Amino acid sequence: MFENYYTERIKNTPSSFIREILKVTQRPEIISFAGGLPNPISFPQEELKVSMNRIADKYGAKIYQYSTTMGLESLREFIAERYKKIWGMDITIDNIIITTGSQQALDLLGKVFVGDNDKIMVEKPSYLGLLQAFCLYRADFVQTKLDDDGLNIEDLEKTMSEHKPKLAYLIPNFQNPTGLTYTKENRQAVFDVIKDKDMLLIQDDPYGELRFTDDERIPYIGMNQTKKNIYLGSFSKIVTPGMRLGYIIADKEIIKMVETAKQASDLHSNIFGQYLISDYLHNNDLDKHIEKIKKLYKSQADAMINSMDKYFPKNIKYTRPKGGMFTWVTLPEGKSSTELFNKAIKKNVAFVPGDPFYVNCSNVNTLRLNYTNADTQTIEEGIKRLAEALKEI
Amino acid sequence: MFENYYTERIKNTPSSFIREILKVTQRPEIISFAGGLPNPISFPQEELKVSMNRIADKYGAKIYQYSTTMGLESLREFIAERYKKIWGMDITIDNIIITTGSQQALDLLGKVFVGDNDKIMVEKPSYLGLLQAFCLYRADFVQTKLDDDGLNIEDLEKTMSEHKPKLAYLIPNFQNPTGLTYTKENRQAVFDVIKDKDMLLIQDDPYGELRFTDDERIPYIGMNQTKKNIYLGSFSKIVTPGMRLGYIIADKEIIKMVETAKQASDLHSNIFGQYLISDYLHNNDLDKHIEKIKKLYKSQADAMINSMDKYFPKNIKYTRPKGGMFTWVTLPEGKSSTELFNKAIKKNVAFVPGDPFYVNCSNVNTLRLNYTNADTQTIEEGIKRLAEALKEI
Repeated sequence: MFENYYTERIKNTPSSFIREILKVTQRPEIISFAGGLPNPISFPQEELKVSMNRIADKYGAKIYQYSTTMGLESLREFIAERYKKIWGMDITIDNIIITTGSQQALDLLGKVFVGDNDKIMVEKPSYLGLLQAFCLYRADFVQTKLDDDGLNIEDLEKTMSEHKPKLAYLIPNFQNPTGLTYTKENRQAVFDVIKDKDMLLIQDDPYGELRFTDDERIPYIGMNQTKKNIYLGSFSKIVTPGMRLGYIIADKEIIKMVETAKQASDLHSNIFGQYLISDYLHNNDLDKHIEKIKKLYKSQADAMINSMDKYFPKNIKYTRPKGGMFTWVTLPEGKSSTELFNKAIKKNVAFVPGDPFYVNCSNVNTLRLNYTNADTQTIEEGIKRLAEALKEI
Repeated sequence: MFENYYTERIKNTPSSFIREILKVTQRPEIISFAGGLPNPISFPQEELKVSMNRIADKYGAKIYQYSTTMGLESLREFIAERYKKIWGMDITIDNIIITTGSQQALDLLGKVFVGDNDKIMVEKPSYLGLLQAFCLYRADFVQTKLDDDGLNIEDLEKTMSEHKPKLAYLIPNFQNPTGLTYTKENRQAVFDVIKDKDMLLIQDDPYGELRFTDDERIPYIGMNQTKKNIYLGSFSKIVTPGMRLGYIIADKEIIKMVETAKQASDLHSNIFGQYLISDYLHNNDLDKHIEKIKKLYKSQADAMINSMDKYFPKNIKYTRPKGGMFTWVTLPEGKSSTELFNKAIKKNVAFVPGDPFYVNCSNVNTLRLNYTNADTQTIEEGIKRLAEALKEI
């Protein structure tokens, strides 16, 4: 009815496929590996309740009033200190802006950097929330293949020389949707290819803290070697997602532009939530809390991988994530994961077919499984059902 | 340094003038009428503390988890019931989407409706947050003059026939920045002009509940007579702004498109804040609370108007708001309010010069005063200082 009023940009933006799927999969009899929700038992509820009462007593009206676009200083200080300590980054709070979840970080970076038909490089497959956010700004996506050890360097070189992208968006740790992590060597090789190019690099890292193994953290691509890097982080997977608190770390000049975009977008993020999370972080041991989440997710990931080893036919491939929330399944060539989805739903198990993680691809033979939101027994039962469905395609 | 990477849209978007001014005016010796902050003593702090503990006990992990893009059902139900009761609107929760403050409502409507160079009609002067939000989507603004009783109908007719705007944005109650309210007759006259045109009408109403007089509420323009109306509301001025909770009421088809835009923008608004405000609203008497705020703001508005009557030269004009948070001052023709601002700051009093409320105007002779965030004595002292500054221009 209002067709003539809509912008081209919104008409071309897909409604989130996952959110549509989630509506289907909310029936109680369904075991869903479709979502990307942190396990609610990982939320520090007791500590947050202590913090909310403390900030109400300590700060009074301030936790309810309008606040600054950049975000609460004490929260930005916590982030600055943490990145300095872990990565030796030379940053201050002026390099950090708080966003309404990482999704808003993507929207703001789209506002600032993505013009009509600008070439944007993403992984193949990539995070669908990014594809949706930048689609609104009419990005022209180019995808670079992802291998088990990170970006395919040959494909990267080809993409760079053919398309000269202005901006790249990568998830180097426990990638969404594949669960893959770029090796140290791969990161160096990627940096060697891109370092002299006129391209900004966004590295989104919501899952980096959730490493199951004792391996050392791997530094970001080109870390501390270029001003063209933009880092995204989030409290969604390590404290709570419902507060919608993420952040961007970048050169001050870029942060300044993002601030203008954020003023126009929502003035500032919920300030109560910022006080709450800041108080929680300053009064609890985050690393200890993360250890608990890692242990929980590792047991769930193990349950899923072991069940797949046990029940899946040998011609089904899947990644073995060392952290994060997802594994990525590849069916034999020619098979459609959407067709599998329709069979699986009838057996009361759900996942996300691979299609929405690609640009202009459909009926792909890949799919994403999430393991963080079901107990190990339920995971085994769900994988059994999926194995049954696999026989029907 | 990153000039070549920025989009045209962000380069053309002004950083919020008010936020820049607020930085200047935060010195403690300055009496500031520049902000637009609700009075912090109007926040129901005790009740909110009760509510936060109640929702923590009652809903557990749900108040921290990811949630739906449309927003919490119980909050949307409260809004639907209220608009049904007050205005007889035929709406359900499907006509309502929760936004991260009203500013995000503007951003989302920009995404959905404002394409490059689309003609957008706004009042002259208009709310600068709207100008900033739609500027990002490269709106071509046309401004229609505002008189004491509402839109200038002759100018409206001219604007409509010359520019055929696709969308109009109006604030019919206690307008920001002028404090003016459209009369019932003016609203009817506006509707008579626009009703057959191919134009959507956004009516933003953050201040409508804050009417100082016992006069009846005046229905919105074309209310319950067209599907082309979009209504914006907010809890910022009647409960607390720090939660960043506003909403859009519109035809379901429009809400569906806005939902897609919101998925791409921040997935959903802070869910803890939605539970908190919903619990507060369902367990307290909002109207009684609003009465308290109105009484407070009326005393402050009276103090400002009375002081201006007493101290200002007779050639200075100002509006006499019947509600809301602002009054609008007009200097003699040829005088610049920016020049006055520079003199006033030296006398430790601040306000917002009119320039940012216009499209392509500078050195205008108008300015905005806010009276909600200082006590009556401070208001009188500030107006005295401003009267002194007036002698110097």
